[in-house]
Amino acid sequence: MKPSTPKDSGGQWRFPARIGDVLARLIRLHPIDNVAVTANPEGLAQGSVVEAGFAVRDFIPAAHKVALQDIPKGGGIIRYGQVIGYAEENIPQGAWVHTDLMALPVAPALDALPLATAVPPELPPMTGMTFEGFRNADGSVGTKNLLGITTTVQCVAPTVEFAVRRIKAELLPRYPNVDDVLAITHPYGCGVAINAPGADIPIRTIRNLSLNPNFGGAPMAVSLGCEKLQPARLFPTGVSLPVLGDDGYVIRLQDAEHHSFGDMIAAIMRAAERRLEQLNRRQRTTCPASDLVVGFQCGGSDAFSGVTANPSLGFAADLLVRAGATVMFSEVTEVRDAIHLLTARAANAQVAEELIREMAWYDEYLDRGSADRSANPTPGNKRGGLSNIVEKALGSIAKSGTTAIRAVVRPGDRVMNRGLVFAATPASDFICGTLQTAAGMNMHVFTTGEGTPYGLASVPVIKVSSQTSLAQRWPDLIDLDAGRIATGEASIEDVGRELFQLILDVASGRRRTWADHWGLHNATALFNPGPVT
Amino acid sequence: MKPSTPKDSGGQWRFPARIGDVLARLIRLHPIDNVAVTANPEGLAQGSVVEAGFAVRDFIPAAHKVALQDIPKGGGIIRYGQVIGYAEENIPQGAWVHTDLMALPVAPALDALPLATAVPPELPPMTGMTFEGFRNADGSVGTKNLLGITTTVQCVAPTVEFAVRRIKAELLPRYPNVDDVLAITHPYGCGVAINAPGADIPIRTIRNLSLNPNFGGAPMAVSLGCEKLQPARLFPTGVSLPVLGDDGYVIRLQDAEHHSFGDMIAAIMRAAERRLEQLNRRQRTTCPASDLVVGFQCGGSDAFSGVTANPSLGFAADLLVRAGATVMFSEVTEVRDAIHLLTARAANAQVAEELIREMAWYDEYLDRGSADRSANPTPGNKRGGLSNIVEKALGSIAKSGTTAIRAVVRPGDRVMNRGLVFAATPASDFICGTLQTAAGMNMHVFTTGEGTPYGLASVPVIKVSSQTSLAQRWPDLIDLDAGRIATGEASIEDVGRELFQLILDVASGRRRTWADHWGLHNATALFNPGPVT
Repeated sequence: MKPSTPKDSGGQWRFPARIGDVLARLIRLHPIDNVAVTANPEGLAQGSVVEAGFAVRDFIPAAHKVALQDIPKGGGIIRYGQVIGYAEENIPQGAWVHTDLMALPVAPALDALPLATAVPPELPPMTGMTFEGFRNADGSVGTKNLLGITTTVQCVAPTVEFAVRRIKAELLPRYPNVDDVLAITHPYGCGVAINAPGADIPIRTIRNLSLNPNFGGAPMAVSLGCEKLQPARLFPTGVSLPVLGDDGYVIRLQDAEHHSFGDMIAAIMRAAERRLEQLNRRQRTTCPASDLVVGFQCGGSDAFSGVTANPSLGFAADLLVRAGATVMFSEVTEVRDAIHLLTARAANAQVAEELIREMAWYDEYLDRGSADRSANPTPGNKRGGLSNIVEKALGSIAKSGTTAIRAVVRPGDRVMNRGLVFAATPASDFICGTLQTAAGMNMHVFTTGEGTPYGLASVPVIKVSSQTSLAQRWPDLIDLDAGRIATGEASIEDVGRELFQLILDVASGRRRTWADHWGLHNATALFNPGPVT
Repeated sequence: MKPSTPKDSGGQWRFPARIGDVLARLIRLHPIDNVAVTANPEGLAQGSVVEAGFAVRDFIPAAHKVALQDIPKGGGIIRYGQVIGYAEENIPQGAWVHTDLMALPVAPALDALPLATAVPPELPPMTGMTFEGFRNADGSVGTKNLLGITTTVQCVAPTVEFAVRRIKAELLPRYPNVDDVLAITHPYGCGVAINAPGADIPIRTIRNLSLNPNFGGAPMAVSLGCEKLQPARLFPTGVSLPVLGDDGYVIRLQDAEHHSFGDMIAAIMRAAERRLEQLNRRQRTTCPASDLVVGFQCGGSDAFSGVTANPSLGFAADLLVRAGATVMFSEVTEVRDAIHLLTARAANAQVAEELIREMAWYDEYLDRGSADRSANPTPGNKRGGLSNIVEKALGSIAKSGTTAIRAVVRPGDRVMNRGLVFAATPASDFICGTLQTAAGMNMHVFTTGEGTPYGLASVPVIKVSSQTSLAQRWPDLIDLDAGRIATGEASIEDVGRELFQLILDVASGRRRTWADHWGLHNATALFNPGPVT
């Protein structure tokens, strides 16, 4: 995206519109775009004349699109330099371009995509950036120091939660270096077709959640005994487990040694105490920024998400990649319509093929459920000006910045690469967050336009608003306001640099996110494509 | 099942086996059975001679099957008077009959089932049985008095949980007639293909959960605003909702009036207080037993579940039906192989057709996920002596007693009938419990052989063990020991009558279940057959 007007900020192209005495803003992102988005929080009144010389014919709600020129019926509606839809009727200059006027383009065919044809050159490395983290034996680094108690099956969740309440009240105060104790509960383990295609996804997710760096890189687990997901299947040989000495790492409630519920709780607490002793010995040490594994996500998006918040994440992504860190972006249904842009950016043909493999798998998964990618946008997305999934996807991939895509991670797998990585996940905020946690994420950044009080228990979540009005309305939930980009108060680079510093501060425990301040923690949400029984 | 030996109890046919000096028991359930189950907690030693006159050829683990006669390769292995499998090789008398020796029969074809051909005659009514419950305006009766706060979408769950913590600490003490406050959270509402086939199942489930009699029959809800599952879709016109006066029943976090997280919490607390005032006016009153809606379920089953616990539930089911109550049994994959017995018992051909419709739907659902009913039994089931899903199903339907099946309820729908009802649900304990709660259940009975610390927040759960050894090992989790039936200490009728009385006592608040004593509450688990996006 080349800047092409004098009023440029971070790749955007803007021109002001005067409404009565109020100077409003229209934002166009690419020179060939034939629509622009209104930045005015109240929208544009019908009849307003914009400086480009035409009259606005309809009321244009805030963040919605206005036609910059006549678009004939069947003509392409262009944003981000890409066709986001075709006009269902003649759309005159100055008209409101909304969902009902737009036919959805077909998704890019997966058999004719460019493979690594536009690999970006490497950016200059950035050295000397550090944070204070908890280094683990496996080389990973935690940004929190948590005791996580894994459950092999739903049946034991309330028992572990009962134990966790007691551990927090009775044991945790004696281990001041440990931040918290969590039950890693989930809706899996039994009553599921555990050998059906796709069952490996939830299983490896639970395994890798347990191994997240913030849990010290070693699991403690509670099993029932008769469940389908046996501990030996959850943790096959090779996973480093000898953390609890003689008793092993698994407490099995049905074992004959437990003669009461009280016995079970006592056994869990004994194991927890040994683990707390280990965790309490950990101290924050100075680590290079290359030890960060940052997961990016958007949720409750609006038309500004792709203009302000997501591009500022993209700028931060480039900084992180230059510092040697791992940056994940995800959400298959929200990149599907921009996949031709991503396969071209893949570091090599194999990575491009892996991107295609994940898209094809998801196309087939949705098809099996008689759904398709058009099921993605929400009423709130549409209210916020995002007309369809193509427009949403183009805004979504702005999070990925400009570097080469180095690797693709399957759902539930752990990321092993540095640089920019596509972690294939559904777009559901909770499933994406869970799968990025399983991938080894130690910092999470979440952009929102409509606003959501999202949070995770195991990883800090920085919430970035796409509009200043949201940041002002929710001052005790939004950590960073990218809406200043739309109003011209800050550039994409400004916000991207602020975000990069905020990631280092939160990772170091120097700053606390609002989600952690309030203790807002969404439940683990697994991706289980298989049936329940 | 006709008794045919002197040592009979509740339809069982037993003969003792002598092991050294220990008098062990074998249990045969039907005169034509060619296998029996050992009741001895240590199993039967190889070489033991049983009184029927043959030697046990293998070690027979507790609750496992022994061949009562030679069974030729390809011959039927008969238990409950039904073929549960075919011998994979010649099985001599006295051999251990285990999974590896048995070929799974094909499931009964759905197009050739008997329709209402063996409708049981009505049992004599039983009058005068009562319990003390909370009567609701819609005629339903609660067994607890709970404030439930429904969530339209996952995004708001941690916010509502935060509010619930404050409500419990700051408001609840002033409303002594209210038992508890619950956030009705779930993994649905956004990030799902909300118009895919089957999406109506989770939606109506959340709606009907909110209307469970234990929440006073009227919902209070928290919405985000931009989610796919909008409040108007969750609660369409017709649902009685004017419970919160001027502010309406829904708090929407994205509404412009909330200027902070603190505002959102304050709004939820104000609404909760108005609802607490209403709920606090409720008092327990004497209600006929016909107001009970009892859900039966089994989980962690063993070979005794179908011999002791489930038949005693069947006896209680008959008593409840005679008293005019509603009794639900469920778990499609666990009745599928016994469906020919159920369609014959349907009250009329329409009910039989509805049973078949639910089986066919589930067959297709599993097939779509490349699974089948053989995915059901767990390692614990098999360890406990249940060789396959046919054997499990025959034991499972013993919960239904002997009366006619009056109605079939689709997953997530509310039951509107009295008498015995089949509520179609997956067998997953958590999904079944959730769907029975949505169906309007006000009492839950759960049988277990392997043992599970299962519980629900909204409905009391009585846990019944199939073996005395479990009841002895978990005295503070098991509410009723049906294992006494296997040891001859009690009959099926004895335990069935005890259970009936226990249901009345718990429903009245006179007795507390162990799950409620410890606060063991499994999370809501929705049945969503559609894809996530």
